Amino acid sequence: MGTRLTDSVMYAHLWATPELAAVFDERARLQSWCDILAGLARAQARLGIIPAASADAIAAARADALDMDYVAEQTRLTSHSTLGLIRGLMRVLPEHAREHVYFGVTVQDVTDTWFGVVMREVGTVVWRDLRALEASLLELAAAHRDTAMAGRTHGQPGAPVTFGLKAASWADEVRRHVERLRDGRDRWLVGQLGGAVGALGFFGPAATELRRMFCAEVGLADPGISWLTCRDRIADFGQLLAMVAGTLARIGAEVYELARPEIGELAEAAPPGAVSSITMPHKRNPEGSEHLDTLARLARSSAGVLTEGMVAAGERDGRAWKAEWAALPEVCLLTGAALALGRQLVTGLEVDAGAMAANLDRYGEALSSERVLAGLSSRIGKHRAQQLLHEVLREDGGDPGRGLVERGVVERGVASAADVRSWMQRPAIDTAATMVDTVLARAHAARDAEAAEWTSQRRWT
Amino acid sequence: MGTRLTDSVMYAHLWATPELAAVFDERARLQSWCDILAGLARAQARLGIIPAASADAIAAARADALDMDYVAEQTRLTSHSTLGLIRGLMRVLPEHAREHVYFGVTVQDVTDTWFGVVMREVGTVVWRDLRALEASLLELAAAHRDTAMAGRTHGQPGAPVTFGLKAASWADEVRRHVERLRDGRDRWLVGQLGGAVGALGFFGPAATELRRMFCAEVGLADPGISWLTCRDRIADFGQLLAMVAGTLARIGAEVYELARPEIGELAEAAPPGAVSSITMPHKRNPEGSEHLDTLARLARSSAGVLTEGMVAAGERDGRAWKAEWAALPEVCLLTGAALALGRQLVTGLEVDAGAMAANLDRYGEALSSERVLAGLSSRIGKHRAQQLLHEVLREDGGDPGRGLVERGVVERGVASAADVRSWMQRPAIDTAATMVDTVLARAHAARDAEAAEWTSQRRWT
Amino acid sequence: MGTRLTDSVMYAHLWATPELAAVFDERARLQSWCDILAGLARAQARLGIIPAASADAIAAARADALDMDYVAEQTRLTSHSTLGLIRGLMRVLPEHAREHVYFGVTVQDVTDTWFGVVMREVGTVVWRDLRALEASLLELAAAHRDTAMAGRTHGQPGAPVTFGLKAASWADEVRRHVERLRDGRDRWLVGQLGGAVGALGFFGPAATELRRMFCAEVGLADPGISWLTCRDRIADFGQLLAMVAGTLARIGAEVYELARPEIGELAEAAPPGAVSSITMPHKRNPEGSEHLDTLARLARSSAGVLTEGMVAAGERDGRAWKAEWAALPEVCLLTGAALALGRQLVTGLEVDAGAMAANLDRYGEALSSERVLAGLSSRIGKHRAQQLLHEVLREDGGDPGRGLVERGVVERGVASAADVRSWMQRPAIDTAATMVDTVLARAHAARDAEAAEWTSQRRWT
Amino acid sequence: MGTRLTDSVMYAHLWATPELAAVFDERARLQSWCDILAGLARAQARLGIIPAASADAIAAARADALDMDYVAEQTRLTSHSTLGLIRGLMRVLPEHAREHVYFGVTVQDVTDTWFGVVMREVGTVVWRDLRALEASLLELAAAHRDTAMAGRTHGQPGAPVTFGLKAASWADEVRRHVERLRDGRDRWLVGQLGGAVGALGFFGPAATELRRMFCAEVGLADPGISWLTCRDRIADFGQLLAMVAGTLARIGAEVYELARPEIGELAEAAPPGAVSSITMPHKRNPEGSEHLDTLARLARSSAGVLTEGMVAAGERDGRAWKAEWAALPEVCLLTGAALALGRQLVTGLEVDAGAMAANLDRYGEALSSERVLAGLSSRIGKHRAQQLLHEVLREDGGDPGRGLVERGVVERGVASAADVRSWMQRPAIDTAATMVDTVLARAHAARDAEAAEWTSQRRWT
Repeated sequence: MGTRLTDSVMYAHLWATPELAAVFDERARLQSWCDILAGLARAQARLGIIPAASADAIAAARADALDMDYVAEQTRLTSHSTLGLIRGLMRVLPEHAREHVYFGVTVQDVTDTWFGVVMREVGTVVWRDLRALEASLLELAAAHRDTAMAGRTHGQPGAPVTFGLKAASWADEVRRHVERLRDGRDRWLVGQLGGAVGALGFFGPAATELRRMFCAEVGLADPGISWLTCRDRIADFGQLLAMVAGTLARIGAEVYELARPEIGELAEAAPPGAVSSITMPHKRNPEGSEHLDTLARLARSSAGVLTEGMVAAGERDGRAWKAEWAALPEVCLLTGAALALGRQLVTGLEVDAGAMAANLDRYGEALSSERVLAGLSSRIGKHRAQQLLHEVLREDGGDPGRGLVERGVVERGVASAADVRSWMQRPAIDTAATMVDTVLARAHAARDAEAAEWTSQRRWT
Repeated sequence: MGTRLTDSVMYAHLWATPELAAVFDERARLQSWCDILAGLARAQARLGIIPAASADAIAAARADALDMDYVAEQTRLTSHSTLGLIRGLMRVLPEHAREHVYFGVTVQDVTDTWFGVVMREVGTVVWRDLRALEASLLELAAAHRDTAMAGRTHGQPGAPVTFGLKAASWADEVRRHVERLRDGRDRWLVGQLGGAVGALGFFGPAATELRRMFCAEVGLADPGISWLTCRDRIADFGQLLAMVAGTLARIGAEVYELARPEIGELAEAAPPGAVSSITMPHKRNPEGSEHLDTLARLARSSAGVLTEGMVAAGERDGRAWKAEWAALPEVCLLTGAALALGRQLVTGLEVDAGAMAANLDRYGEALSSERVLAGLSSRIGKHRAQQLLHEVLREDGGDPGRGLVERGVVERGVASAADVRSWMQRPAIDTAATMVDTVLARAHAARDAEAAEWTSQRRWT
Repeated sequence: MGTRLTDSVMYAHLWATPELAAVFDERARLQSWCDILAGLARAQARLGIIPAASADAIAAARADALDMDYVAEQTRLTSHSTLGLIRGLMRVLPEHAREHVYFGVTVQDVTDTWFGVVMREVGTVVWRDLRALEASLLELAAAHRDTAMAGRTHGQPGAPVTFGLKAASWADEVRRHVERLRDGRDRWLVGQLGGAVGALGFFGPAATELRRMFCAEVGLADPGISWLTCRDRIADFGQLLAMVAGTLARIGAEVYELARPEIGELAEAAPPGAVSSITMPHKRNPEGSEHLDTLARLARSSAGVLTEGMVAAGERDGRAWKAEWAALPEVCLLTGAALALGRQLVTGLEVDAGAMAANLDRYGEALSSERVLAGLSSRIGKHRAQQLLHEVLREDGGDPGRGLVERGVVERGVASAADVRSWMQRPAIDTAATMVDTVLARAHAARDAEAAEWTSQRRWT
Repeated sequence: MGTRLTDSVMYAHLWATPELAAVFDERARLQSWCDILAGLARAQARLGIIPAASADAIAAARADALDMDYVAEQTRLTSHSTLGLIRGLMRVLPEHAREHVYFGVTVQDVTDTWFGVVMREVGTVVWRDLRALEASLLELAAAHRDTAMAGRTHGQPGAPVTFGLKAASWADEVRRHVERLRDGRDRWLVGQLGGAVGALGFFGPAATELRRMFCAEVGLADPGISWLTCRDRIADFGQLLAMVAGTLARIGAEVYELARPEIGELAEAAPPGAVSSITMPHKRNPEGSEHLDTLARLARSSAGVLTEGMVAAGERDGRAWKAEWAALPEVCLLTGAALALGRQLVTGLEVDAGAMAANLDRYGEALSSERVLAGLSSRIGKHRAQQLLHEVLREDGGDPGRGLVERGVVERGVASAADVRSWMQRPAIDTAATMVDTVLARAHAARDAEAAEWTSQRRWT
């Protein structure tokens, strides 16, 4: 069994989805490497570099057939990243094809092309999940367009907002991630064929054409130039995922805080069978929300390693590159888990509009202070009004209306009692509703104009 | 004097450019805040929220006129980020305008809009510098299209590349940053008008129109919705700058290594007057290259703070937001310094093609092993060839030709001595040259199609 | 004016204390460098390396006398870190001493020794502040030894704790930092005299004795060996400070959450004159608590740069070293600000025992579930009891007593209604009080046994 | 198979040692958890909380007996971290013991105590490996006490050092880690028994005694107070490991650079069977050295997560705590791998004293400039000498002697040709040798005074 708790039988579900595990699982990875070698062989056969029969045999080789103990043993023996695999493959290939597998390429050609494949697979999932999440958030925003609640700044209830505004701000942030994913796609999804040092000397004049055909075979764009130590694509993709995880953690943080019983405005759906605490049976913990924060921390940390890796030296730099081996899958798996968890959280989110109204009422006297300030500002100037209200609230507690009356502001003819009452009519959420409408309109327009599937939009096929 | 060495009289030039210092300098920042308040006042006057005369007076107020000691004292006294500034402004404004400055807005409206302005100013510089850097790199690539040199992997000389290939790979990476900057621009360059909690309750029905007009006044796009705790724009911009710094550090790392006298292929231009070492007068250190790495470390670190800041709570979260106050300027200043330094480094770079050729010659016997491998592979199969060459080189040192002959490979009819000689004809750099051509062609096409100035392309004006 | 907001006239007080600013301020730094050069000159004079008169003149030179414009200009002109300073010093020194200042040393000898001085100065402040903070926390813990309140796990009220337990756990964590500071001191407080490459070739046979005397002159230990690229001391010190900032942020986070009006158990003291919000005059924000989190983020980020800097190459590595120039002062200043703010927060903390009791009462039925579980476990087994209570609470809401009665648990003779009542007697905080006593006792014992001043304990003088 | 490449069959050996994998492997972890539960049960039986027979049965339960599919399924079903394990245990326990396993404790009691065990196991390995590494480094230092080589600053050869000095500086840094490990041990190695919220309400008056006995049973110290959200121990331990990895990466970086064929002073031992490159058969890459850097990057990144986790809220904070589940094992495994690799690297290191001498000779004219500077300084003053030499070297290239003669310095009576020759006698490494002696002496003294085994020194048993 593995040593990483993130990969354990008991807890793996917290740190990856089955769908993405199926991308990164060792057998899946090896199959993907075999597919890449098959694509290479096919391209080489078409160019006459290796016999067609060999290419067919190589394309027929399955990772499942590999003797993993032998592969691993040879990997350790040779201290080489893929020589164990090559020797393993040679054992399962027919004699005639053995010399033609992995022909003229290096580890990075396989693993970097795999990174291209990985970004394609993961990006496709992220695109789908972001758009599904956005759809749920847009529904929430529409449903709660007019659900008033206390805004909270610095952890303190303030002037009113709507829950729809909150959901719309989440949706708007998610939309920007969708756009970033759209914009970055063609920069990321490239293959690698660089050979020993990126100059492709091994293949002679056929090299450029081989790279073009190889990339087409594996469904990636031709980068036009080797990128052995150009790691900006990896860093960029990883940082975007970390940002996606950050957005999900922001949603989680909100649920976590508003699910406090003392506030009680939001709650996670409680799955049947779930037990929050075995020592405190009454508990119903916002564990999904909480875990989104955990995932974002780790994703951020791994993404940082990828940006650090951009400072790579010469034509191959194992220091940076091997760190990506650990960090890129990590950020993909963690963000994938966050997206799945986030979708589930948003879909099942319980919004208690009654509690929102009650809290607004409870803190309402004070909460109306922005409106009272606006009203009073129109009479005595904004900064004077602010100063006056500040004193009133400081000394008299939560009721600016009573404070103003008691201080004779009303009597002095500055404002009538009716004025103060009218200013205190809560909540002032019309503009919030307009913002929700704006976000809904532009999100739906954008969604209608774009493909449901990420890769269906690629310009390079 | 300041406490940060990065801002010291002696060393500030290492950590910022005068141009960007002029964006972030305290007076400049305050002037920018005044401009934002002026834009707000103008928009408010047009909507009849405040008198036109007040707006004119507010627009005429200059940061230079502020009594900074008073502003600072009031800032400390009130523990409020802008109340000191407001009080300072009220002192310099005519009586009639005092109540109309900073009318109905909050700190974040000013500082987040300033962030929008900052991203516009900095992005404009980065766009210009990236494109200038790219131009220099393309020139280098073209000039050294056929300058052969040893590729180096894992720090060890390997098969040949060209210096042009290296420069082209830098240019290609820079181009992707240019594209990222292009793609992100309209997401970043927005104003903020959210009021107390983002719902803009203060302004009543005029709020949406006010925000639109305010943003237009300050030359930013209207975000459509408040983004008080949506910090993805800041994180995204910051991470891109950190990546730009990473690319420059990569170039610097290459110069640093290849400027070792033992290699001697590259050198920084030595500015007149520069003294590398006072205890070792002979030294000529690659200090610019080195400093690029320093700048990238720090930029990366600050950018990480920005991504962490995305997990913001409620309608305002000072924990995340105030960290941006330190981190966003930092990453801008550091990356700006890196770009200026990087441009200077590349422009003055001394390329010693003779040393490159000599090193290639010195390590050439072994360096040709990729070609020998290719040739031998065509006779006895690739993996057999690899195994054989591995043994030969392991035992006989650097000359595969002699080794093969001595082992009788030639005699056994596998390959003739002439074959081996022809395989060893160095260097195999034709494909490298083709890659250079590809990069040059697409870079020039992209450059021709785009505006020289970043903001001239904005779609939102 | 400076470009870093952290150093601005308006906001510098948020990011440093005057006390530590006086350590890092440019003039102070230069004076410290002058002091180091004076110590060097004195040691050299005693060994006959330079004339005593020169040493006297050098010791008399003040940073205030330097023409900073000239120093800065020469720094830029020579691209050398201290040649500008040297030239500046030569201008203020008498002719006879000019050639004897900065004799035979390099930049790192000055700046690394300054780092030793900085760690001494900062460590002294941190030691004092940690112990003062601890004293306040111990007082809080003693005062609230029996103040019951709801424990909160995953943001949800659970079984009871005491506020004293919380304060004791903070104090205990602070104590460990005190111990770390004690243990690390002698590893950190060393001078540097390494010359060009660490071998001190310049000084010939006198070198070792010179280093010993120089270190004694500047009040630091002799490292015994040059440590030009051994940066573990810097990283270790920086990480400890970041951990200290983390502890303060933990205290701040607790105040921030429990100061929510919906909870209302803690509040920051409101300084007279403070204005939380100008648009919402009723607000009283936990801005100190919040800022502790901001400071911890930035301190952590800078400390990370220091650990990264440990991977330094050769005998001098500007990449790592210059990053320390920015990062070490940063982490010191930020943590110093956090300590001052944290001390103020804890000293002024308003603890509302009534609100704590009321919340415990409000959530009490459920909160007693741990005790009910214990009681019921003694009758029907722990896991059965947990399962039963889980169902009762899930279906019947918050009152386990009623649920158990209704389900006939009592009737079935498992437990009497009196049993259930007795289990529900809240709160079970006796052990919490014992823990407080333990922490108090060992903290006071440790405090009594140690010096109030950090450096008074040094073993190396 | 797992999804993390670090845990893959092919590559796991690169990211962990078998020894530490045996600590973190899922079965091993579960066995450790069972042992902890056994210790708890034994302590509870001694206090009469559960029957002795139950304790015996619980102590006899083996993780191997668990039906992992069932455990995992129940973990997912209940969304609870250990309820699946409890249910799995209940299946393998005799009826009478089932209700007495995991009695009154929470997840963190098990997992935090396991962290204590983990730190003990890992710390023991790290202590042993650091001391073994130190021993090898001390041998290297002694063997090469007088092996002169060029010092290199900013990547450029400078004045001479010795290889012994370099090795001694590594050893000295390692010694400080040994001391840190010694100092931190008693702070780290504690158990956790906090129950629901840290107040241990479940156990009534027996709680404190139970904790004491439980900790003794599992071989850890009694913390005296619950530390559910006091995570400084974890962060501190993790950061120390990251620093250890940093030191190893520094050694690796040196080997990497000096193993460049253009320098050729150091080489990694080439294990039989190892293949550096399959496309370039001549290559012999410093892959161990390189990998040390990779490991340090990742260890640093994970350690950062641990420090971030110190800012934990309330009495349990899953956000921070669950991140530790991923990050603490990671930093342990990576650093363990680094130590094993580092020991191997140092033990097998090939030091080419001839190449060192040749390089010193090659760059020697210039390298002697520090000595020439010293000599000339004694005649014309240090700064004048520096200026003169700077000009000479700038214009005349590498030979200061010739330059001085040509400029008439000698003729003008300042120095004779013999003087210059004598100054240029290289290398001036006597002080370097003295430093080596110092480090050797104090390291051996410290080693003699300390136990070979980390935990044998604990004061708390």
